[in-house]
Order: sequence, then structure tokens, then C-alpha cells
Amino acid sequence: MKMTDHGGSISTGEWMYSLAHKLFPICRSLTGDGVRRSLRLLQEEIPDLQIREIPSGTACFDWVIPDEWNIHDAYVMDESGNKIINFQDHNLHVVGYSLPVHLELSLDELSEHLYTLPALPHAIPYVTSYYGRRWGFCLTEAKRLQLKPGRYVVHIDATLKAGSMTYGELLIPGKDTAEVLLSTYICHPSMANNELSGPVVTSALAKMLLKQKNRRHSYRILFLPETIGAIAYLSLHLDAMKSRILAGFVINCVGDNRTYSFLPSRLGETKADKVAKHVLKHMAPHYKSYSFSDRGSDERQYCSPGVDLPVVSIMRSKYGEYPEYHTSLDDMSLISAEGLAGAFEVLKSCLNVLEENKRYLITTLCEPQLGKRGLYPSLSTKETGKEIAMISEIIAYTDGSHDLIDIAERIGVFVPALFPIVHRLCEAGLLKEVEEEVKIDKSHL
Amino acid sequence: MKMTDHGGSISTGEWMYSLAHKLFPICRSLTGDGVRRSLRLLQEEIPDLQIREIPSGTACFDWVIPDEWNIHDAYVMDESGNKIINFQDHNLHVVGYSLPVHLELSLDELSEHLYTLPALPHAIPYVTSYYGRRWGFCLTEAKRLQLKPGRYVVHIDATLKAGSMTYGELLIPGKDTAEVLLSTYICHPSMANNELSGPVVTSALAKMLLKQKNRRHSYRILFLPETIGAIAYLSLHLDAMKSRILAGFVINCVGDNRTYSFLPSRLGETKADKVAKHVLKHMAPHYKSYSFSDRGSDERQYCSPGVDLPVVSIMRSKYGEYPEYHTSLDDMSLISAEGLAGAFEVLKSCLNVLEENKRYLITTLCEPQLGKRGLYPSLSTKETGKEIAMISEIIAYTDGSHDLIDIAERIGVFVPALFPIVHRLCEAGLLKEVEEEVKIDKSHL
Amino acid sequence: MKMTDHGGSISTGEWMYSLAHKLFPICRSLTGDGVRRSLRLLQEEIPDLQIREIPSGTACFDWVIPDEWNIHDAYVMDESGNKIINFQDHNLHVVGYSLPVHLELSLDELSEHLYTLPALPHAIPYVTSYYGRRWGFCLTEAKRLQLKPGRYVVHIDATLKAGSMTYGELLIPGKDTAEVLLSTYICHPSMANNELSGPVVTSALAKMLLKQKNRRHSYRILFLPETIGAIAYLSLHLDAMKSRILAGFVINCVGDNRTYSFLPSRLGETKADKVAKHVLKHMAPHYKSYSFSDRGSDERQYCSPGVDLPVVSIMRSKYGEYPEYHTSLDDMSLISAEGLAGAFEVLKSCLNVLEENKRYLITTLCEPQLGKRGLYPSLSTKETGKEIAMISEIIAYTDGSHDLIDIAERIGVFVPALFPIVHRLCEAGLLKEVEEEVKIDKSHL
Repeated sequence: MKMTDHGGSISTGEWMYSLAHKLFPICRSLTGDGVRRSLRLLQEEIPDLQIREIPSGTACFDWVIPDEWNIHDAYVMDESGNKIINFQDHNLHVVGYSLPVHLELSLDELSEHLYTLPALPHAIPYVTSYYGRRWGFCLTEAKRLQLKPGRYVVHIDATLKAGSMTYGELLIPGKDTAEVLLSTYICHPSMANNELSGPVVTSALAKMLLKQKNRRHSYRILFLPETIGAIAYLSLHLDAMKSRILAGFVINCVGDNRTYSFLPSRLGETKADKVAKHVLKHMAPHYKSYSFSDRGSDERQYCSPGVDLPVVSIMRSKYGEYPEYHTSLDDMSLISAEGLAGAFEVLKSCLNVLEENKRYLITTLCEPQLGKRGLYPSLSTKETGKEIAMISEIIAYTDGSHDLIDIAERIGVFVPALFPIVHRLCEAGLLKEVEEEVKIDKSHL
Repeated sequence: MKMTDHGGSISTGEWMYSLAHKLFPICRSLTGDGVRRSLRLLQEEIPDLQIREIPSGTACFDWVIPDEWNIHDAYVMDESGNKIINFQDHNLHVVGYSLPVHLELSLDELSEHLYTLPALPHAIPYVTSYYGRRWGFCLTEAKRLQLKPGRYVVHIDATLKAGSMTYGELLIPGKDTAEVLLSTYICHPSMANNELSGPVVTSALAKMLLKQKNRRHSYRILFLPETIGAIAYLSLHLDAMKSRILAGFVINCVGDNRTYSFLPSRLGETKADKVAKHVLKHMAPHYKSYSFSDRGSDERQYCSPGVDLPVVSIMRSKYGEYPEYHTSLDDMSLISAEGLAGAFEVLKSCLNVLEENKRYLITTLCEPQLGKRGLYPSLSTKETGKEIAMISEIIAYTDGSHDLIDIAERIGVFVPALFPIVHRLCEAGLLKEVEEEVKIDKSHL
Repeated sequence: MKMTDHGGSISTGEWMYSLAHKLFPICRSLTGDGVRRSLRLLQEEIPDLQIREIPSGTACFDWVIPDEWNIHDAYVMDESGNKIINFQDHNLHVVGYSLPVHLELSLDELSEHLYTLPALPHAIPYVTSYYGRRWGFCLTEAKRLQLKPGRYVVHIDATLKAGSMTYGELLIPGKDTAEVLLSTYICHPSMANNELSGPVVTSALAKMLLKQKNRRHSYRILFLPETIGAIAYLSLHLDAMKSRILAGFVINCVGDNRTYSFLPSRLGETKADKVAKHVLKHMAPHYKSYSFSDRGSDERQYCSPGVDLPVVSIMRSKYGEYPEYHTSLDDMSLISAEGLAGAFEVLKSCLNVLEENKRYLITTLCEPQLGKRGLYPSLSTKETGKEIAMISEIIAYTDGSHDLIDIAERIGVFVPALFPIVHRLCEAGLLKEVEEEVKIDKSHL
């Protein structure tokens, strides 16, 4: 399978959809072989991807890496020997981190371990119990209503014991050490928008970045189990991340084609917020803007007090906001090549803008004479004004304190329109780049 | 008479109304025995209240304590010997600080000394002349129209001579020296909303505070003649007040039941403004918000340049904004136990919020694991999200720079709802209080 | 001719109109005798006006003073010997800075050098080619349509050779060295609103200032060729201007009677912006407010990065926004004594407000006792409140950080209403002026 940006053998959208299709059946959880198999599958596409393990019991800030969970089979069998709930049919049927069990019990006893969604009678809910020792099965409300009184055999063939937590990491070095963070999660079984859209869009961005020459920034790309994965990674790399990361994106729920969503950083005024809002305003003007109070993914860790990384989330339909969320209805029919490609293009544009959005200083006092450099029409008439409005705004605001987005916002254009003009002015020696320091925040250390 | 918050022998509202009723007939002025008698009556309820005197002639910033004025009797008698205007009927009949006089004169001559309100023909106006040497009588326009030409005997038995100005002061010490200021005035004769509602609500707050254990702040409670009283007090205590007072309230016009009003501090961004606006938004959402340009009471002194104390005013119907203001119609029928109790509850809530509204710092990096402490449901389903929204917002914003009101405002709840959660998180060791310094402003000294 | 503010022999508006009428026929350009003659004509009215020359070839930041251009005659003659386009009829007929030429050519060859405005068929356009070596004629579209095929003789008797650029300068010293800048341009031939309204309103302001006693500020008044004149002047005086100029106005398009316009400074928050917006809000409340992106005159230089002078522009109908702009229709019928006088009054008010708008500090702690100084009624009644609202707001906000415009804005009055009250309070010793330092910005030097 070969991805191309230029409509070759397969479009980027189709490549992402096809990769999600391969990952879909695997039963992922916080830990275990499902995660490892998923990451190895991504590694086939991105050979530089590093797969790392952190042993169970390792302390990470307020948390501890849990035991590793692996599941091989599970079912509920009725008196006639029919497996009426079967993990082999759908891996959402088993509550995540269920303890191994083999029991015979009555329908009443069984019912205490069954989870359904009466409001969505044909959906299997997604339920986990990472830190409480339980077992349980999830099924549709429709099937639950058919269960008859009687004796049932419950069988869960799973192991929960010391092992490790697995994650994937890719560092793509650029000209400077300032980093852009892309973080996605890889811990949900068989769900498409939340979660597989995240890893496949992130993989496509990684492949695109690896092909680029002359990248200015470095890129830190993470495939982590949600929450504990981000906490564990931060506990290992907090100092480096605080001193290097200039913007970051949590990439999740980027696969459907219904809307675009934006979730700001905690304090709301970072470079990531600025770039994301400018790009969305021009590429997806009807996007839905959420508050940080609506957060639910790893921005909770990246933006927490004392961590305070400049991280936002750009999504299609946001977790918790679409009916199929965290159920078996969030399947491969919910996402599409078009949906994935839309998110890819917006995020690609954000990365491009981050590369190019600098502050410049004009090298002359007063306006430069553009005419003698062939940058301005030498004949002044009533009509020649428009074509130089952009150049005029650039030379007026490259004062070292406005960046290119600020200038684009003043005149209502999408900032990439300014990039070629800025390059021409730099070549003419009229602008020079202002050196940017990555702020090093050690306030909490 | 015994006050109780819990509906015992008498409600707080009824206690306050009854106290106002006892104070109503006394003829108060800037100085004199009326003020002394009123303060002694309050002292019966609050034995710790200190009654203090400042001698006439004492310089206080740009002012001087005036001579003491006492009035014993006054009337206007017609040719038939009828006392047609009689101080014994209503103490508003005499212009405050009138000079003693005994004269016979014509109606025309008399008329130059009569004050009425033609727009409110049945109201006796309230008129004073503290710093201009005059005498005069106030009466209803209706009565003035009945006066017939003829000779009248005018008699005012008053003294205006060196003495002192009287005020009341109560300091209730707390755990720290930071102080909350409650200031009310006690210089108006026989008017209910403006003025007796102020001293009685302030007295009820004082009694409540004296009963509380473990107060964090100290409380400085003042019963002063308006303007000159506040100026004199500030001239004696400016340094201490500037270094200690973290919030203050001018308490006046808190007795009727028509509306709530808010008057901000001069610069508008103090802790007192923040607390008052938050409390009113939740307890009296339709309150009327004024500008500091609408000020008229002792915030004029407390907020003046170089004094700059963080003082606001929470009122029911504001002075100058209700028709009965500064007339005999502002009587005991205008205020009620309910009206007084409403203001009491709002101010009590402000004091409570000031005690509890702190800044905290979360003690973990990344989110704490709430589950292992029993602070979070261990089973994650689609439905468990709501109950932890408040806890989630607290742990995200206890970064040392947001206080609890900031966090409550983010999620639209009244801040007392957060207090028990914060206490639980403190007990679990997850939050620690940020030490607050009372800003010491010596800019003008 | 004698100008008077008080309707004497001739009103200021009529004086300005009549001066514009005298200047109208002169053929001005960036350089040359037209500018010199115009400045000498102004010098007859303002003898202190200095006329200065900068030699061709002088480097000014990124620019060089161009050769001097003088034109004596020009025409296009048809085969019958008729001068069908004749510089003697209208000096807009020749493209500014046209090279000398004497040629015979066909209509097709001629047409490449003809400029018309098809949308305004009876207007001669204004076209210049300062920095590209060209020649050309401008005519109405109506006349162009009548040109018949045939041979034409083209004659331009002009010189373009080393000489100098001429400008006028007037420094009116005040009590302190802080300066107000008035800048207008004098480089357009025979156009009335843009340009002659500018020099004549500026001249009237100069005469008014010269008559004033006790000016606080100094005034730097410039009559410059647009763009290159401002750049050249800045290149000679940048340090002095950056350290002295507290506010400035580019005066142009101030002659018609249709509207008022405001163009802010680049950063938008200078003293000039504050004064201009306050004055316009009260004197011309329906004025049209532009963005700095709409700029087109010498604010482009005065506000450029590293120069950053606090300069705005108050106009009547703004350049580029009225149909007659940069054509022969912008003639003496477009402007009027009333139009010029309106702009004069607004600018005069701005200068007056700049003189008087200071920050003050009240000299007492707490409110001063106004009564003992006769500044406050000694009898307090319900009705005496209003007349002291202004005095009350002044004593509350003269805290050293609010200036008088801030105080006027709080209570919605035009700031000159406060000046007499402030003077009375100063005389009473209750206010003292806060010394103002002119900010010296050497950031770019």
C-alpha cells in the first residue's frame, strides 16, 4: 500500500481509511498484546516508529502503571449450550480489564454483570474497569430483553498480571530543537471515529513530515494509551517537553464528515490556539468551538497546572457529542476517506502555518522604495492600489511584535497568502526574521 | 429580645425590624445626644461595641469636627397660640443644625425659612445645614398652603457649641490580621430605609460574626456619622486600614423589599467587587448595577484617591432612587423584616465567600488518580461524567492563580457549591492553600 | 486680506477658501518651481515660514531625492495645427514628471501615452510617474473618443535634472519642548479637496497658534511633498521627533462639506488617537472611522515601524472615498468656506484639548470640604445634587492616572466643559498638575 498526496495509486484519505480497516478488529486496551499488534502494524508503514514498554508497577506522578491485561476468549452460554454473548463476535462484549471467571449462575445473578444502553437498543456499549476489580459483559438492550430465566455459564479467559504498558514514539528532528507535539491514543477496541481515526491521521501526518525537506521544527509524535499513557510519558519527559514544545495537538475523533470541532488549551492563548483558530476560520468556518471545560482527552494532562503545555484539539465530531460515541455503532461506516482527509488537510495546514508563521522586522526606517526593486508599479493611477494592499500591510506591521497571522487577521486573508510575498521581501533584503526563543517554563519544577 | 438564625423565639428579620423600631424616634444628627443614645441602645445588644468621642475643632484632613448640636424643642406658633409646626410631632420639622432662635415675624418673613416638597405634598422633607449658619423648618406642602398671613412666633431651643462627635466601633479579631470593613451611618433622624436599615443589618451581622468560631479574617465594624465620621475615622486609622483591609461594605438602604442594588468601588476591580457581583448574580440575579458616578455615601471617602480601600455598597432601593428618600415617607412602613433579612442574607453570604474564597495549588503533576482515593467512580460508562464536572474543573484550575470564584464562574455555579469538594480534596492532600498576602499600598503616604 | 476668528472683515473659512483659490492654478509636483511659488505665497501670510531645499541625489533612508522637474508648456497638436490637448488649459493634462519630448506620431502610437477614466468620461485623471521614465497626457474619455486617425505632434517642454526638493517648515515654540506635529502636503497640481484644503487649513491653524499667548506645547508645522518629503524630513530629524512629538495630525482632504473621517495611528492607542476620537465624538458624532489599513498619506511614514510617531488623520471626505478624487473634478467647487471651517474648528479643538488635557492629583486625602471654599452649596436638599456631579467626578478621579478626557468620558461630557472647574479647583489649591514626561522611544535606534 502506497500513500500519495498527489492522487497517485491511492489518495491519502483512502490510505488512512484502509489502515483503519486493518486496525479495527484488534482488541486494544490500556495494556496488552492488542496495543503491541496495533503499533507493529503502524511500524510497517513508519519504520522509524519506536515501540516502548513501561513495566507494571512503575510510579508516574500520582499513578502507577497497572498490570497487563490480555484476553483470549469470553462468552455467556445458555442451558442449551448456545454462546449467546460471544467475545469472538465483537470485542466490545467484554468489559475492559474484566477478571478471568468461570461460573454458573442464574439470570438474576448474571444481570448484575450486564451493561446495555436502553436509549440505543441496538448498540453494544463500551465499558471499562481499569482500576476496580470486576468482570462484566456488554450487549444490546434488544438482546438483553430476550434473555430467559435459567442457568448460564459465564467464561472469561483473560490474564491480569505484571507485565508492561506499551506505547509508540517517533521523533522527527528539524533544524531547531523547538518541537511540535502530535499525540493520539491507541487503547480502544473496535471503534472507528473514537479511536482509529486518530492513529491513522497521525500516521499520515508523520509520513508527510518524514518526506519534507528543510523542516524548521522538530516533531514529537506519540501513540499512547489514553490518560495513563500521557501521564507516564510526561513523568519521563516533562522537563524536555516544557522547554521545547511550542505547540501541540491531541488528535482524536477526526474521521467522520459531519462537522469540525475545536477545543482550546487550558489558558487559551497559546500559539497552538492561535494557529488552530486561524486555520479553522479559513478552512472550516462553521466549526464548533468548545470550552476547555468540555475537555475529555489527553489535553487534561498536557494542560494540567504545572505541566501547562500549549496543546489544543482539532476534531471532526467530538467525543461525547455524537450518538454513536463509545458504542458499537462507532464503526467503519461512521468514518470515511473524505472525513479523514478533511481533518488531515486542516492539521497539515496547521503544521505548515506553524513552520512559516514568524515575526519579522523591516530593515528600513520609513516605507522602503518598492518601485526601484520592481516590487511596486512605477505608474501611479487610481487603479493600482489593490494589488499592493497585502505588501503594504506587511511592511507596516513587520515591527518585530506582530507575526504573520496577526497581519493576515488585520486584512482578513488566510495567512498562507502572505508567505510568497514575505519570501520575496526577504530576498530583497527588506525583511529579516526575528529570532524566536522557545519559552522555557520551569515555574513548577 | 433574642435573635436566632434558626427561627427560634424571633427571626433575624424580625429582630432587626424591632431594633429599628426602637431607634426610629430618636433625633440623630452629625453630633449630639441622639447619636449617643442610639449607640447605647446598640451597645445593649452588642456589649463589645465601643462608643468614642472626637472633640469639636479636631482637624481631620481637609475638615474640622464641627460644634455639637443638641435640640430640645422647636415650634412655629400662630396668633391663636397654636403650635402649627411642632418638633414634638416629627423631628424632621426642624432643619438639622438650626441655630437657636426666638422671634416674632410675618408670614412672608417666615416663608424664607420654610422648606417643602411641592412634588410630594404630604411629605416633610429632610434638610440640614451643617456648615452654613441658618435656621429653618420643614413641613408638608399641604400644610404650607394653609398658612394664613399674620404674625408667627418662631422658637428653636437648641445648642450649638464645642463638644464632640460620637461614633461606634467594634473590632472582631480573626485568625489573621486581614480585615473586612463594615461601615454604616448613624446621623439621620427618623428615617427607616435610609438610615436605620443600615445600623440594624450591620448589628445583626456583628452578632452573627461574634458567635462564629474559627473566623479567618478580622472584622472592623463602624457606626459613623456620614461623611465627616468616615473622614475623621480615616484620618486616625489610614495606615492601618490601607495595610489590612481586604474588602469592605458600606451598609445603607438595606431595608425595603423592592430590589437589590450594587455600587462598585472607584476602580471597580477589587476583591469586594468580585465577591459582591458573584453573590448578587446568584442570590439576586435581577439586581440593579450602578456606576461609581452614582455614589453618594461613605464610599466617597473610602475610595477617594490615596485612600483607595476596596469598598463597595450592596443595597436594596438605593438612596436617591426611590420616591420616599430623604422625606418623612421613608418611615417604618417602608421597610420590613423580609426586606432587612434579604439584605442580611446577601451580606452574610459575601462574608462567608470572603472567608472561603482562596487560591489553591494542586499537589500533583497531571491529574491526580481520584479513583484510588474513592473520589471517582471506578467504572467508566457514558453516564458517569456529570457528577465529576465540578471536581474536574477544580483540579484543572487550582494553579495558584485562579481563586474559587474564578472556577465557579467558569462552570456557572454559585461558589459555595465548591467549598465541600475543596475541603475533601484538601483532606486527601491533593490541594494546598496558597498563602495570601494582603497588599500593603503605601503609594500615597 | 485679514483673517479673523470673530467674523471681522473676513471669516476664517472665507480666508482659507480665498487662499486656496490663489494657490489653485499653480502646477505643483514633487519638486520644482510650482512648489516654491506656492510656499512663497504661504510665506506672505506666515512670514516665519521657512522655505528649505534638499539637493537631488540626497539619500534619505531607502530613498533618494529625485531630480527636479519643471514644466513650461505641453500640447498635442493635430494635422490642422489645433492644440487638441493643451497644458495651458489644465495642468492635469500632463503626466507628472513627464520627460521632454517633441515627436510626430500616429493616433495608435499616441494612444499608448494617453490616460482617461472611462467611468468618469468628463474627468481628466491625475497621473504621475515620479520614478519611471515616461511621458504621457491625461484627458477626458469624451475627448479621447473624438480623436481621429492621423498624424499628431506631441510637444512637452519640461526639464528633469539635478536641482532640489523644496519644503516649508515652521516651529512655534511653547513653554515646553514637547511638540505637536501638523503635517500637510504641497505636491499636487490644481486639485482642491486633495490637496489645497490641507495647506490652507494648516496655515489658518498656524496663524491662530502664532496669535496665542502662553502656549504650553511647541508646534512643528510642515508643508512637504507627499511621501518623499515626509521620508526626507524624518531622515533629518528622527531623533528629535521621536523624543519630542506627543501627538500629530496629517492634514489633508479637509475642504468639502459631506462628512468627517478619522484614520487612527498604526498602533491605535496614542494620545493623538484619544484626543481625536473624543473631539470627533462630540463635534461630529456621525464621523466615519477608518482602519489604519485604509491609510494613504504620510501617516504611512510617521507611523512606520521604528518611527512610530503618534500621528492620526482627521479629514472631511477621505482620499479614495469620493468620486472626484484624483481628477479634475476635485476643483474649487468641491470645497467651501463652510467645509474648510468645519475641519479648522475640529482641529483647533484637538489642539486646545491637547493643551489642557492633563493629569491632576487631588491634594487632600478624602474629599475636600468644598463648602468652606464656596465651591459647594451649604444647604443640602434633594435638588442640589446635579450641579456638582462634574466637580464630584473630578475630585474622585484626579488620582494621577486619569486625565481629564478619561473623567469626561466617564460622565459623557465634552472635556472642555471641565476646564473652568479644574482651573477653579487649582486656584483653590485642591488640585495639582502631574508633570508629564514625553516618552523618549529609542527602541529602533
